[in-house]
Amino acid sequence: MYAWSAVDTDRLRSDRRHALRDLMQRHKLSHLLLTGFDHIRYATDYRTHIAAEAFDWCAAVIDLDGEAEIFTPWVDATRREPEPSLPWIRAIHPAPSWAPAVAHPVIWSEQLTRALRSATRVGVEHIASCVLDRISASLPDVDFVGIGQDLYDARIRKTSDEIRLLEDASVVNSLAAESAMRTAREGVTDHDLLADAMCSLQKSGAEFVSHSLCNHRRGSDWFAAGSVLRDGDPYFFDIGVYGRHGYASDIARTGFVGGDTRSEVKAVYRKLLTALDIAEEATRPGVRVADIDAAVNDYLRREGVPTTPYAVGHGVGLRACELPTIHRTDLVDRGARIVENSVIALEPETGVEIDGELIVLKVEDNYAVEAHGVRRLSTASYAFDL
Amino acid sequence: MYAWSAVDTDRLRSDRRHALRDLMQRHKLSHLLLTGFDHIRYATDYRTHIAAEAFDWCAAVIDLDGEAEIFTPWVDATRREPEPSLPWIRAIHPAPSWAPAVAHPVIWSEQLTRALRSATRVGVEHIASCVLDRISASLPDVDFVGIGQDLYDARIRKTSDEIRLLEDASVVNSLAAESAMRTAREGVTDHDLLADAMCSLQKSGAEFVSHSLCNHRRGSDWFAAGSVLRDGDPYFFDIGVYGRHGYASDIARTGFVGGDTRSEVKAVYRKLLTALDIAEEATRPGVRVADIDAAVNDYLRREGVPTTPYAVGHGVGLRACELPTIHRTDLVDRGARIVENSVIALEPETGVEIDGELIVLKVEDNYAVEAHGVRRLSTASYAFDL
Repeated sequence: MYAWSAVDTDRLRSDRRHALRDLMQRHKLSHLLLTGFDHIRYATDYRTHIAAEAFDWCAAVIDLDGEAEIFTPWVDATRREPEPSLPWIRAIHPAPSWAPAVAHPVIWSEQLTRALRSATRVGVEHIASCVLDRISASLPDVDFVGIGQDLYDARIRKTSDEIRLLEDASVVNSLAAESAMRTAREGVTDHDLLADAMCSLQKSGAEFVSHSLCNHRRGSDWFAAGSVLRDGDPYFFDIGVYGRHGYASDIARTGFVGGDTRSEVKAVYRKLLTALDIAEEATRPGVRVADIDAAVNDYLRREGVPTTPYAVGHGVGLRACELPTIHRTDLVDRGARIVENSVIALEPETGVEIDGELIVLKVEDNYAVEAHGVRRLSTASYAFDL
Repeated sequence: MYAWSAVDTDRLRSDRRHALRDLMQRHKLSHLLLTGFDHIRYATDYRTHIAAEAFDWCAAVIDLDGEAEIFTPWVDATRREPEPSLPWIRAIHPAPSWAPAVAHPVIWSEQLTRALRSATRVGVEHIASCVLDRISASLPDVDFVGIGQDLYDARIRKTSDEIRLLEDASVVNSLAAESAMRTAREGVTDHDLLADAMCSLQKSGAEFVSHSLCNHRRGSDWFAAGSVLRDGDPYFFDIGVYGRHGYASDIARTGFVGGDTRSEVKAVYRKLLTALDIAEEATRPGVRVADIDAAVNDYLRREGVPTTPYAVGHGVGLRACELPTIHRTDLVDRGARIVENSVIALEPETGVEIDGELIVLKVEDNYAVEAHGVRRLSTASYAFDL
């Protein structure tokens, strides 16, 4: 298993709880009503996410002192003070068991209403409207305020403990990426590459594999399809993991199966690596995210190759994709600037058409933003450097 | 790779689109606004889910003719008629890229408002309230109606194509379970078991590993923690997968590392298998779900062992956990009855305390509900039968 760093867990929890208390005071909130696995972890350090589809299975009600009531599908009766190491969790209550929230809105709203009886003003993020409407009708004197954007804003700047954990996740994800690249040889399939990566991630002791995608000559479709690698073929994969304490990494690599790759493909791949260099060089505290997007895509445009058809980067934390969204101004809510001690992913994409077939090339790394620029956290080599 | 069944894709799509049209007509809806990966797949067969945290990345607006506008983070400009094989998809539009929906509520609501300009009455499921409130304010004459529960109700009864695909997923998941059980020997870790299972699922050509949990002497905590298996140790794992076309399977097995397992543990494990038999025998069309829960837990109670601390079963479809929720009446919204041609999971749990340590034992299988009872879809052997 990977030797995960020992961080100061008490400090990690305390820093996050203080950040949330500040946010609550700024918005004059008496309570938070959280449903995202990432927000619940941040606020309470209670680990809820155990399935791809668990995003609507859990909730937490947090008061101004950080005291929490948790709702999960894996209990059928209230358990008081259930976690001795997390004394601020007063109770775990039963939420609808193994079911989407919108399939049991009455039970959900009754449970949450009970926990919010003393509330005056509640910050919410992504709760189902059919549940929130019922709670709101039962508690007519309580204000419910959307604070999802503020919650993500509060998480952009990371503590030193968080950066350490994010670096660990990037190293573990890099080991998986290098292992998958070594697996890539004539006769294996796209699924085999992903199997190898997932196996590596799991053996490293990761909490959860968030995504594992592989494109082998499938145009702009990123999903593995059982396609068999042949000598010289280009491919890319994009793999994500939640590591120890739930902190994530998101990495992509383009590779080439041993043998002759068409020189046109290699030439465009070198432009992709240059685009990544340009993104790295453009990123430092104070820079507008739109300028990073422009630096990357202006270069690709000048070189006559396709531009990246999505955000060229994003924050990384307790989700693999958080704020800031490093994208064009017209496709984001606000024109953000890069801040020191944030952790981000940069992921330029381009492509080349060979004999009428679009070959997509993509690379992604994770970085800590320091005073004068970025420090790369992912350690995986690039094709041609292996 | 596993030899996935060839189903009649045209019929699968057409059956689902007709079911949704019926639902829309019953509720006098002009449009659906869908955000769940499962609902979008059901309505359009467009595959969106590519990451554990992608639940708030995508949306689809569907009209009464089944024509769809899709919103995803992986385009930066509208693509018209993007999928020749899915001609009802009129366009794919850019949604906020690699970011939680609540972090970009303005862009989200502007995009969706544009697609709903001709709407009169819109059915919604789990859209973030900060987005829905903005859309609603921009379109004051449009009614928005929560129809999440109805959408899941419409999916309880499966078509023959769906049952075939769910059976495939259960077989693939069973192969992974048996592989993990063969891996379990002195010296390997809980993570190694899951690595093996994930590798098997991926090599079978599954679309996505939804969850992979392993409990090895961790009390009621289901998360793998790097713990090393020793001779005689009991363990259980719970693994979930979305197979071909996105149809899921959800399986758990208790196992014993070769060597001497305490006879008290084995005796309780045999009661667990009896509890599963009882669940199977109790399940047939027309039976109330609460009666299945009672049959299982009354038996465990009579035997003096812990009862299952969550729903003893659930529907399986385009999510691993759908309706019906097979649970006590006081913990569900409605007292449902089992229907013919549904596909369900049954998952009793119990435990035994040995020298002050709680050993949790769990087993889960998937079934098609036929006229006179259930047919087991999962093929994995049970510990003692291997």
